[in-house]
Amino acid sequence: MTFTLNWGILGCGGIAETFTKDLLLDPKSHRNVDVIHKVVATGSSSSVDKAKKFAETTGAKDAKHYGSYEELVKDENVDVIYVATPHSHHYANAMLALEAGKNVLCEKAFTVNAGQARKLVETARAKNLFLMEAQWTRYFPLSIELRRMISSGELGDIKQIFSDNGKSIEHIDRITNPNLAGGALLDLGVYSFLHIFQTVYHLDPEHTKPEVKAAILKDEKTGVDKFTTAILAWPGTTAIATCNYSLESDPKSDYSAGPCVRIVGTKAQVCIPSPPYRPTSFTVIPNGDGEVQKNDFPIEGGNGMWWEADEVAFCIRDGKKESEIMPLDESVVPGGARDVGCEAHGTLTSRWKANIPLSHRSGIRSNSYIAHYYTNRQRLWVTPIPQPNQ
Amino acid sequence: MTFTLNWGILGCGGIAETFTKDLLLDPKSHRNVDVIHKVVATGSSSSVDKAKKFAETTGAKDAKHYGSYEELVKDENVDVIYVATPHSHHYANAMLALEAGKNVLCEKAFTVNAGQARKLVETARAKNLFLMEAQWTRYFPLSIELRRMISSGELGDIKQIFSDNGKSIEHIDRITNPNLAGGALLDLGVYSFLHIFQTVYHLDPEHTKPEVKAAILKDEKTGVDKFTTAILAWPGTTAIATCNYSLESDPKSDYSAGPCVRIVGTKAQVCIPSPPYRPTSFTVIPNGDGEVQKNDFPIEGGNGMWWEADEVAFCIRDGKKESEIMPLDESVVPGGARDVGCEAHGTLTSRWKANIPLSHRSGIRSNSYIAHYYTNRQRLWVTPIPQPNQ
Repeated sequence: MTFTLNWGILGCGGIAETFTKDLLLDPKSHRNVDVIHKVVATGSSSSVDKAKKFAETTGAKDAKHYGSYEELVKDENVDVIYVATPHSHHYANAMLALEAGKNVLCEKAFTVNAGQARKLVETARAKNLFLMEAQWTRYFPLSIELRRMISSGELGDIKQIFSDNGKSIEHIDRITNPNLAGGALLDLGVYSFLHIFQTVYHLDPEHTKPEVKAAILKDEKTGVDKFTTAILAWPGTTAIATCNYSLESDPKSDYSAGPCVRIVGTKAQVCIPSPPYRPTSFTVIPNGDGEVQKNDFPIEGGNGMWWEADEVAFCIRDGKKESEIMPLDESVVPGGARDVGCEAHGTLTSRWKANIPLSHRSGIRSNSYIAHYYTNRQRLWVTPIPQPNQ
Repeated sequence: MTFTLNWGILGCGGIAETFTKDLLLDPKSHRNVDVIHKVVATGSSSSVDKAKKFAETTGAKDAKHYGSYEELVKDENVDVIYVATPHSHHYANAMLALEAGKNVLCEKAFTVNAGQARKLVETARAKNLFLMEAQWTRYFPLSIELRRMISSGELGDIKQIFSDNGKSIEHIDRITNPNLAGGALLDLGVYSFLHIFQTVYHLDPEHTKPEVKAAILKDEKTGVDKFTTAILAWPGTTAIATCNYSLESDPKSDYSAGPCVRIVGTKAQVCIPSPPYRPTSFTVIPNGDGEVQKNDFPIEGGNGMWWEADEVAFCIRDGKKESEIMPLDESVVPGGARDVGCEAHGTLTSRWKANIPLSHRSGIRSNSYIAHYYTNRQRLWVTPIPQPNQ
């Protein structure tokens, strides 16, 4: 029996447009699922005309239009709110929707720190609502096959993971604006973390928290994080992960520099060519005599965001309050790693300060980490301190 | 005017054979240099027959043969001793040659720790002898061009370096024998460090010491280091380097996993395809509109070890006591980084103990670093503490 899910779109920017267009594609042209997505409402924080124009552009012809998010989340026909605002606003907007009793799909980066993530999760659970971070790449058939290969033991024990996402996006104003949570971390780093977490943390039955050490270069003018290299290691496993993200390390934007992700197991390794947010193939390089094998996962007729939308529909249809593919605990724990990067922003706004108890003085313990020492004005080493309740 | 350099070969293993064959190639077939290399003596620690057989195999027909290193280093016709024994013996063998008044080219890894390296350097300087670590890759035309590009500013400011050397060499007994300084560090890691140091440290006029943080996985049975990821950062520059080496991460030994080295500058990045010890090309990927350019540096008629031999000859001919391409300070400082890896060996022999003041207890300061904490039996985090005299 076909299940219909009614969406309200909160925010009318580029990512909302891409998502909504994918959402409204005929699923039968792409995949055989018994789900229909309807966009019943669109909301802009600035004007109802913008919400209306957005609906027309994306093909959401029967949607109601709202000039404020407060009105949008009250629409009784909406089953789930898709939050597609800048990172700095995710927490407030998702909280607004949850408090109005709506299920929520929130764009990644879920929040700017783990504390905000925990509060959203607590609120959703208290209100018995569905909540999910929109890490769309996790729902790709490519990702599903990759996780299956790891959990089945085909790659052996996972020992090292290299995950890199570098792109020249400094020309986008938001990216270098600390007031909008700019920097490499929340736009690019989330994908570097994604591949590490979905393959190591996600598949570890013990769900041990990673230990993180990172070197971060800040932009001299804006103070946002520009180049970061972090090592993540898991006390409960032997895996070591290298997480890189930067605003300049893919000068050609064609990822000519090689694979963005390598997962090294004792039996074989997997190399994923770029881009890390929308990979369409991976190569399996076995130890010993086996052949190198390329596996293709083409994405046709759109961008491939329908898979995460379908996951939302399946969960809500089946009464689930979170996704097994993107569990809420994983949105909180990577948030812990993200806190390392948040420190690099340096110029915290009052909005952030309310939720991030950070200290900038060397050697002073904050809520979640210790900043070991500054090496110069642009770089710092940071090491998070494991928290009992994290 | 042609300069003739008379070599004594100390050790008769595989690397000695490769080097000696390259040494005795007619330079006119390869390059136009006014140097003649002669092998006048070969030495084995086990038997004179082995030294004789080695000379015949490599074409060193006029050499004298010795059944002990003590006899070899006393040969009055020898200008320079090439030390080609296992890593664990480099220090003692190089010291033997220096104390006999001979110039020395010592195979990499130069020593098993920075303390040994410093003693060799002090001895060579006190005796006014030439000493050099045999990092052969540094003398390749490819490396010279790469360093020129960086120092000229063609790549802009160097921000990130990724350097990886993984190879399946666990089947070689020496590699997993802690008594012979086995593990990934000294056979594979030296090349990962090489590319980082020749491009960042070497070209920094301030020669600031790197700060190092590393996660290391040990082999369960032998205790040698098997998988390591280290971050190196320089207080005097903004560069961040990621240094990887492992015994299993190139399962096909054809380096199908992508480039082994990436150097990311603000104007362009350079990608070096594997193998990192003998690269023959690199790709320059400029920011913006420029074309991606592949630069080839073929090595014909041998392995390319003649370039380091020529450097030794030039230095000795010109009265230099160290090479500008591989200065002695760089053999000591990377040794400091290497100490991080040495800790991972775990099972130190009495030979090592004499020279490495290590502590295995968490949180206890040793001579050169602090072991932060063990995470489990196989892995540890280590951070070297900068030393005033290092």
